[in-house]
Amino acid sequence: MAHIEVAEGIPGIRSLVLFRPETGEHLYKLVQALLRGPSSLTEAERELIAAYVSHRNGCSFCMNSHAAAARCLYGNKTALVDEVLEDLQRAPVNAVLRSLLRIAGKVQVSGREVSQEDIDDARHAGATDGEIHEAVLIAATFSLFNRYVDGLASLTPEDPAEYAVMGKRMAENGYVLPAKKS
Amino acid sequence: MAHIEVAEGIPGIRSLVLFRPETGEHLYKLVQALLRGPSSLTEAERELIAAYVSHRNGCSFCMNSHAAAARCLYGNKTALVDEVLEDLQRAPVNAVLRSLLRIAGKVQVSGREVSQEDIDDARHAGATDGEIHEAVLIAATFSLFNRYVDGLASLTPEDPAEYAVMGKRMAENGYVLPAKKS
Repeated sequence: MAHIEVAEGIPGIRSLVLFRPETGEHLYKLVQALLRGPSSLTEAERELIAAYVSHRNGCSFCMNSHAAAARCLYGNKTALVDEVLEDLQRAPVNAVLRSLLRIAGKVQVSGREVSQEDIDDARHAGATDGEIHEAVLIAATFSLFNRYVDGLASLTPEDPAEYAVMGKRMAENGYVLPAKKS
Repeated sequence: MAHIEVAEGIPGIRSLVLFRPETGEHLYKLVQALLRGPSSLTEAERELIAAYVSHRNGCSFCMNSHAAAARCLYGNKTALVDEVLEDLQRAPVNAVLRSLLRIAGKVQVSGREVSQEDIDDARHAGATDGEIHEAVLIAATFSLFNRYVDGLASLTPEDPAEYAVMGKRMAENGYVLPAKKS
């Protein structure tokens, strides 16, 4: 049971944005701009960074839902998502994405962990300022969402099938504030 | 120097929201709703929670600016801000605010650190669902801002006088997206 009285049966972040749409509205618009707005990173790559950070934070709800969205968006390369979550070192990702995932992993710990060397490595791999900015802001944003979802003990489904449905909806529709239940 | 090419001489978060107003707009609206919107917590109390979390994250820019805003808003009780930042245990805050600061401190580490006992303590002190929600979301939001500001090494002024000016502006005007420099 959640720590505060939210609508029953609604999982994770959705129950919280329905509790306070005044702030929820901006959280959804932020994540929509960040994960679906114009970018030189694909939507699949951005969802993968979100899932990777959530995995490192041990946030089961965010990790499972964003990994499911990334699998949908990767189409015929769905195994890549699990390979990155299992072992980034060995996962077959391109050099830019690898350097951005490494930066995101540092940001998950603390912004102050990101070194000039991390940035130099990303640039050497070919990452742009915009891509470095996105990796840092996605990691910072999921450091928020992970804490919000777990800090209030919101409902976390255990059935993988529920996340597959969620991931498909997130991949197809993006992030739209759910209507308040009457 | 920041890790990415932002406008020169603009400190902290302002330089980053000017780099990407598409996401910056929602970040400012979120923090405005959270720290200035209708609430049973005072603006001073909410700024103090923001400063406390930023202090624990070692984010000098956010800690100094939000502590300065809290000092302005506390009016004749400005010493309280420094007492909380120095030692929450001994600081003369009321029981509700103390319990919310403790929850915020847990969220700073991880959402999963918040225990049923922390929630029971807050309720026993008289905290409402809305106040518990706000403490968690303020702590989660500053876990984002701290990582964003430090992860991109944005400009962090060292002169306390600069933060006093910033804090006054934040206390009086709230959070308004700065105009993009032409």
